[in-house]
Amino acid sequence: MMQFQLQEKINLKTKPLKSLGQLEEIATQIGVLQSTLSPHLSKPTILVFAADHGIASEGVSAYPSSVTYQMVNNFIQNGAAINVFCKENAIDLKIIDSGVNHEFKKYPNLTNAKVGMGTRSFLHDLAMTETELATCFEYGKQIVTAEYESGCNIIGFGEMGIGNTSSASMIMSYLYDLPLDKCTGRGTGLDDTKYQRKLEILKKAKVNHGTISDPMIVLQTFGGFEIAQIVSSILEAYKRKMSIMIDGFITGAAFLIAHRIEPRCIENSIFCHLSNEAGHALMLEKLGVEPILNLKLRLGEGTGCALAYPIIKNAIAFLNNMASFESAGVSKSDT
Amino acid sequence: MMQFQLQEKINLKTKPLKSLGQLEEIATQIGVLQSTLSPHLSKPTILVFAADHGIASEGVSAYPSSVTYQMVNNFIQNGAAINVFCKENAIDLKIIDSGVNHEFKKYPNLTNAKVGMGTRSFLHDLAMTETELATCFEYGKQIVTAEYESGCNIIGFGEMGIGNTSSASMIMSYLYDLPLDKCTGRGTGLDDTKYQRKLEILKKAKVNHGTISDPMIVLQTFGGFEIAQIVSSILEAYKRKMSIMIDGFITGAAFLIAHRIEPRCIENSIFCHLSNEAGHALMLEKLGVEPILNLKLRLGEGTGCALAYPIIKNAIAFLNNMASFESAGVSKSDT
Repeated sequence: MMQFQLQEKINLKTKPLKSLGQLEEIATQIGVLQSTLSPHLSKPTILVFAADHGIASEGVSAYPSSVTYQMVNNFIQNGAAINVFCKENAIDLKIIDSGVNHEFKKYPNLTNAKVGMGTRSFLHDLAMTETELATCFEYGKQIVTAEYESGCNIIGFGEMGIGNTSSASMIMSYLYDLPLDKCTGRGTGLDDTKYQRKLEILKKAKVNHGTISDPMIVLQTFGGFEIAQIVSSILEAYKRKMSIMIDGFITGAAFLIAHRIEPRCIENSIFCHLSNEAGHALMLEKLGVEPILNLKLRLGEGTGCALAYPIIKNAIAFLNNMASFESAGVSKSDT
Repeated sequence: MMQFQLQEKINLKTKPLKSLGQLEEIATQIGVLQSTLSPHLSKPTILVFAADHGIASEGVSAYPSSVTYQMVNNFIQNGAAINVFCKENAIDLKIIDSGVNHEFKKYPNLTNAKVGMGTRSFLHDLAMTETELATCFEYGKQIVTAEYESGCNIIGFGEMGIGNTSSASMIMSYLYDLPLDKCTGRGTGLDDTKYQRKLEILKKAKVNHGTISDPMIVLQTFGGFEIAQIVSSILEAYKRKMSIMIDGFITGAAFLIAHRIEPRCIENSIFCHLSNEAGHALMLEKLGVEPILNLKLRLGEGTGCALAYPIIKNAIAFLNNMASFESAGVSKSDT
């Protein structure tokens, strides 16, 4: 009903029918979510969840694990890509320590949600305990609730964690029952030899853990803490009727788990970009969604959300501020 | 040389190599153009050129010709999509009357560059005289010079003119020696019957005019005034070393003419989006360029430029403001 009314409002705008393409879909989606013909975006926020991964010790990444805490320091000092893009696009940015192997001092833009000093390697072990997973869910819920209560109605999630494309590949492979070759990319930039090694390790892990069908067990098995907190954050943002900006491959894997738990969270979600990480195109295809941007990014951190946000903002602006044929005195199509 | 230094600066940023994809290319392109490692964008401006087309009387559009002047009035009153997007993204917007079949009052945001009350139908006649074409070129040059002198270094061009996808299709077909079927779309939204009629009329026009190889004669033959002024504007912006934002199919056709006259203007040009108008994908492919956005827009007015501008701005911001591995104390890739 609301969808129909929104489309009708859009069709009366001074432009050829459907000529704003994907912007019309975004405006309609947010209007339906907010149950209004005049939606608004309030306190846009990106949360970057960071954690370390035991699997990194198996040599699945082009970078050493220490880069996780170094990059968190870089976030704190406003030096990373996500800092630059959030500032440029007037988006609030908060960094969450979900489980980095480092003790940070206190900073106003750093939230302590540390569940541990990193997950265990999922090659032989479960990445986390049931209690750790439950703690991740509790933190995610609290963090998003606080943002909601401070007036935020559109939220995006980013991540940092050396090794976390490996977790994401395992999640995708299990949830869609796909071979790992189709779910595994080069992460931060592996060469051919190291990519083959990564793939071998992930295949061994799959053999070791066997069949798992419960999405929560998949999450507990392969981690990581930041991914689990994002899953919980997506579910909470869904409950709060917030618009949810989904970034790339890793946040996408978190979305897959959330979506398996609550399929309707897709109604709130905006898929911000198609990443250059192999597997992401197939992930979006399986979900049946169309990303906003395709800029060949493969950086994570929520950078795809930050770059897509201006498009989302423009979609809401045209819905609210464009003249109608009648108000502008423009003739309609004669077809 | 500058290109190499820019890529080196980008490679030292705290991110995996090449992980900012197309943003790295945009930043490099603008840095090379401005001959600096720290480029800046100044007074971003979009000029919307509007004119009427004699060919519209043959029934090639879903809208009557009167919509051209009605939409110009809408631009003046800030009611159109381009007004909303320029305001949202802090872009200066000016409307140019290149030859609309209407006498406008004076408005601060409307520039009078009227060459006539519209072109003649190119079905049998030349759309404009040689003198009219020269006048278009003089106006385009003057208008861009004024923007340059007021401090603008990045400029985008949009258009409004019922019937102007027909001119654009003829230009593309002649310049690339392509059959009209591959260059002709549904414009503002023709149904199958009217689309076939449009195609028949364009094919007749091609038979009537025969072979033309000089791009200036192609432009004079098929028009329109707004397209000719955009061609001249692109050439002037190139001379002034400005960054040039190219919108969709019609502005793209103007670019084809400019590019045939001065091939190096492609170095200044940023292709803002892939339009949903049939023919545009092939046009970009022939030029060998990658558009920034693909949002299935088909609105014109420069809306693709206005929506892509935040991406361009973010590309410059990361180049200038992101930390390097050294300054942030982050370890580099171990590959």
